[in-house]
Amino acid sequence: MTSYRYFEDFRPGERIPLGEKAVTREEIVAFAREFDPQPFHLDEAAAEASLLGGLAASGWHTAAMYMRLLVDGLLGSSAGQGAPGIDRLVWRRPVRPGDVLSAEAEVVSARPLRSRPGLGIVSFRFTVTNQHGDTVMTVENPILFSCRSQPA
Amino acid sequence: MTSYRYFEDFRPGERIPLGEKAVTREEIVAFAREFDPQPFHLDEAAAEASLLGGLAASGWHTAAMYMRLLVDGLLGSSAGQGAPGIDRLVWRRPVRPGDVLSAEAEVVSARPLRSRPGLGIVSFRFTVTNQHGDTVMTVENPILFSCRSQPA
Repeated sequence: MTSYRYFEDFRPGERIPLGEKAVTREEIVAFAREFDPQPFHLDEAAAEASLLGGLAASGWHTAAMYMRLLVDGLLGSSAGQGAPGIDRLVWRRPVRPGDVLSAEAEVVSARPLRSRPGLGIVSFRFTVTNQHGDTVMTVENPILFSCRSQPA
Repeated sequence: MTSYRYFEDFRPGERIPLGEKAVTREEIVAFAREFDPQPFHLDEAAAEASLLGGLAASGWHTAAMYMRLLVDGLLGSSAGQGAPGIDRLVWRRPVRPGDVLSAEAEVVSARPLRSRPGLGIVSFRFTVTNQHGDTVMTVENPILFSCRSQPA
């Protein structure tokens, strides 16, 4: 699916694959150093002694990588206008160096905004999976899109 | 408050200031280039024509900066063991180049985990505010902490 999407182009139940991202140890440590310097995101020995059981990406790094997949796989070729927030985000498994993440969007619902004619809101459920088929993160995220047909 | 905190050290209703972070245009664009390359996070003219009304940080960048404040202001001096997810996150206003963000944690509730003796979960409500006193982001985020008294 590469055609440009407006609000009207999303159908509840539709699933949209968003591509893949390989994760390196260097990326995990660089993100953690800047934004989330907890020992289990920086240091192998500290991580092995933690609940994560080994070096793992910051959950916010996983979220940022998912965002990049979402832009490359969908929003970059759409009339997307940003998002008001996140309804729920769950980190289900650690993301490890060497993992290859893939993401999928599922359209949950879509409705025009009465308060802003010409805009609609699409509620998505996103699933991020690793190379073993394990779900590592799920996100419920409503996103605004311009409508193809604008009010006069 | 600089003493090391365990699960038992959080009281519902307590508010914990988490410090400040000044945001530069270079940081906004660098984060967006890597993780959220939508035009309104990269380009002033595109941003002025968008709902954001001017260049603004990716919401995930704001979340990552809040995480850094949380680590520096609280988690880095605690028995924090990570977080299972985000219950709700709202981006309330754009974050602009030159903004100075400050964050505050409010303890909503705290309970020991029956399934994992020696661990407890503290539910927080975080508020991120800009230099004008406007709330830019709120996050409801439960975080795991080790208990001071461990099971025998």
